[in-house]
Amino acid sequence: MRCRGFMAAGICAGIKKKNAKDLGLIVADVPATAAGVFTRNKIKAAPVLLDMERLGAGTCRAVIVNSGNANCCTGEQGMADARQMGKVAADRLGVAQDLVLVSSTGVIGQYLPVEKVEAAIPALFEALSADGFSDFAEAIMTTDTRPKTLARTVKIDEKYFSLNCVAKGAGMIRPDMATMLCYVCTDVAADAQALKALLVDAVDLSFNRITIDGDTSTNDTVLLLASGASGLSLSDAQVKAAFKEALDAMLVEMAKMVVKDGEGVTKLVEIRVSGAASDVDAKKMADAVAHSPLVKTAFFGEDANWGRIIGALGRAGAELNSDTIDIFFDDVCLVKNSQWQGADAEAAATKVLKKPEFVVAVDAHLGSGAYCCWTSDFSIDYVKINADYRS
Amino acid sequence: MRCRGFMAAGICAGIKKKNAKDLGLIVADVPATAAGVFTRNKIKAAPVLLDMERLGAGTCRAVIVNSGNANCCTGEQGMADARQMGKVAADRLGVAQDLVLVSSTGVIGQYLPVEKVEAAIPALFEALSADGFSDFAEAIMTTDTRPKTLARTVKIDEKYFSLNCVAKGAGMIRPDMATMLCYVCTDVAADAQALKALLVDAVDLSFNRITIDGDTSTNDTVLLLASGASGLSLSDAQVKAAFKEALDAMLVEMAKMVVKDGEGVTKLVEIRVSGAASDVDAKKMADAVAHSPLVKTAFFGEDANWGRIIGALGRAGAELNSDTIDIFFDDVCLVKNSQWQGADAEAAATKVLKKPEFVVAVDAHLGSGAYCCWTSDFSIDYVKINADYRS
Repeated sequence: MRCRGFMAAGICAGIKKKNAKDLGLIVADVPATAAGVFTRNKIKAAPVLLDMERLGAGTCRAVIVNSGNANCCTGEQGMADARQMGKVAADRLGVAQDLVLVSSTGVIGQYLPVEKVEAAIPALFEALSADGFSDFAEAIMTTDTRPKTLARTVKIDEKYFSLNCVAKGAGMIRPDMATMLCYVCTDVAADAQALKALLVDAVDLSFNRITIDGDTSTNDTVLLLASGASGLSLSDAQVKAAFKEALDAMLVEMAKMVVKDGEGVTKLVEIRVSGAASDVDAKKMADAVAHSPLVKTAFFGEDANWGRIIGALGRAGAELNSDTIDIFFDDVCLVKNSQWQGADAEAAATKVLKKPEFVVAVDAHLGSGAYCCWTSDFSIDYVKINADYRS
Repeated sequence: MRCRGFMAAGICAGIKKKNAKDLGLIVADVPATAAGVFTRNKIKAAPVLLDMERLGAGTCRAVIVNSGNANCCTGEQGMADARQMGKVAADRLGVAQDLVLVSSTGVIGQYLPVEKVEAAIPALFEALSADGFSDFAEAIMTTDTRPKTLARTVKIDEKYFSLNCVAKGAGMIRPDMATMLCYVCTDVAADAQALKALLVDAVDLSFNRITIDGDTSTNDTVLLLASGASGLSLSDAQVKAAFKEALDAMLVEMAKMVVKDGEGVTKLVEIRVSGAASDVDAKKMADAVAHSPLVKTAFFGEDANWGRIIGALGRAGAELNSDTIDIFFDDVCLVKNSQWQGADAEAAATKVLKKPEFVVAVDAHLGSGAYCCWTSDFSIDYVKINADYRS
C-alpha cells in the first residue's frame, strides 16, 4: 500500500504498557494540501485543539500520532505536551512547527510521557518508508483487534491517482462527527477548500452513520492529505467526480470495518428506514434502533425480537402510524402493518440473524423520508472489555 | 400491607410459560377516584389505549393485570382482547365495563390468550382479600427478581391515611414517562383532577428520572386510586400537603427499588449535576452520563474512569467550560477544574465505587442549573438476560 508523495512509519516508543507499536508518523515529500474533520464533543483533547488551529493554513508536512494516551483533560500541560510532540518532529524535518499535525488516542486524563516521544524520534524517522503505512496502522491501535487499511487506485486516461486510508476505532463510536482516528493520503492535487468539502460529505455518509456504543470520543479526527504527485488535479471535473466516488466508497467501507472490529462485536447490522415523513424523521428512527441496548442484545442473542425494534421506533420522536409499520430482516418480512407474520416468517428471520452481516429494513408507509446507518450487536465481551479497560 | 377500601389478589392463570403467578386484580369497595400516567412511546399497547380512554371519567372499580404477554402490536384483535379481559372482570363484579382498567406486561407482538384469563376469573375473585397486595405484586413481575411493594401511613390529628404501592420494572427503563407498571392505592378522598396533578408531579420526581437501558416500554402505566375510606380529603390543605409529601417520597423510593432490581444491576448510582447554565442543561448532562454504556460498564468494573464521565458531559449538548469541571464520587473529589487529583484521590474514589450505592456529583461552575437522576451499572448479566429473553 503506497501513495506517491508520502512515507510512513510506526514503532514502539514505550507509551503503551505492553511492548507494542504506539508511535506513528506520516511525512509528505512536499507540503501537502490538508483538510480535517474533528469531534463535536465539547471536551476536546489537546492535539485536536492544536490541529484545528494549524489546519487553518490548509497545508501540512507531517502527522505524528501516539496511542496509549489521549492527552485529554490535561490542561495547559497537555497543550504544551502536544506542541512539544509536534516540535520534535518539525525540528527533525527542518520545517515550521505549524506544518506538523498531532493526534493522540488512549486513556483520558493522564499526562503524555512526551520524553518517550522525544527519545523515539530518531528511530521513528529511520523507519520512514513508502511501505510504512501498515506499521503506522498498527501504531495507532488501542482496543482494535486488527489494523485497518484500505487502498484504491483510479485510472483516468493514461494517468492514475491513489487513495489510501488508515483508521482505528473500537470504542466510543457514535454517528456524531468523525468518531475515531482516520488518515487518508492521496496523490491528487487539490485546493484546501475543495478537499474539506469532499471530506465533510464523505464523513457524513460513512463515519457519521456508525454506532457501537453511542459515546462520542474526545479525540476523533479524520485527516485528508493530498500530495499532488499524481499530476491529476481536482480542478479537472472528471478527476473530481472520480475522486469523490472513490473517497465516499472507501470511507463507507472503512466505517463498516470499524464497526465490525468494535469492542466485542459479532454482527454488523445495516438499519435502513424508508417511508418516513421526512429524512430527519427517518434518521431519528434509524438512530433509535441502532442505539437501543435491548435491540443490540437481541442481535447478539440471534433473536428476531421485533417488539424491541418497534418499541425503539415508537420512542424516536418521529411521526409514526402505529398500524402501518413493516419490518424486514434482509428480504424476510417478519412484521406487516405492525403485526407478526407467523412462525414461518419468524424461522426465516431467525436464520438471517445467524449471519455475521444483515439488514434490518423498516418501512413506515408515511412518506418518502429515508436514511440508513450501521450498528453492531451488544455482547458480553463488550461489557468485559469496558469494565476492565484501564486496569 | 393494607389500604382501607381495597382488596387485591394474584394467581396463576397459565399465561407465563413457567408455573408462576401471572394474573392480578385490585378491587375497590366503591368507585374510587382514579388518575393515570402512561408511556410516551408512540407505539402503545392495547390496554394502555383502553385505559387512557376509560380514565377520562376519573373513576374506577377494578384493575386487572396480566404478566407474560404485553398485548402490544396486536392490532384490532389486541383491542378486542383487552376489552374482553376487562369485560369478564366487570361482569363478575356487576359493574359497567368502563369502570374496569386493564394492564398487560411481557413479550410484545403475540396475541393475548384471553381464554386463560376468562377461565381464571372465578379463582381470581375467590382469592381477593385485604391482604392480597403481595400476591398481586408477584403476579405482575416479568424479569424482576423480587416483588416490589411499599406502604406508608400518615397520622393527621386523630385520623390517619394510608398509601400502598406495587410496581414491576426490570427492563426498558428510561426517564421518559412512567417506564413500568405501578399501582398506588390510597384511602384519602380526592377529586380526579387534584389526584392527576399530584401523580404527574410525583412521577416527574421519581420514575421519570431513572434509567436502566434507555429504552421506553410500550406498556408503561402508573395508576393512583383513591377510595376515600379514611375520612380524610385532599380538599383539606393539611391533608393534601401531607399526602403530597408521602406520595413523592414513596415513588422516589420505589423508583430506586426498580433500578436496583433492574436486569443484571449490581449498583444504584445517583447522578447529581450542579453549576450548569440552566436546569435544562443540567438534565441533559445528567442524562448523558446516566445513559452512557461506557460509564455504566466502568461502574460495573468498579473503575473510577472519570474520562468517560467527562466525555459524556462534553457530548450532552449543554453549555460547558471544558476547564472548570469538578467530579465527586460521594465526597471524594477526583477531578477539579477538569484535571485528575492524583493517586490518593483515585484510590479513595475506587473505594466508593465498590459500594452498592453511591453518588456521582458534577459541578460545571457555570450557573445555578441543577438536576439529579438515578442509573445502574451495565453488567454481563444484562446482556445475558436480554440476549436470551424470548427463548
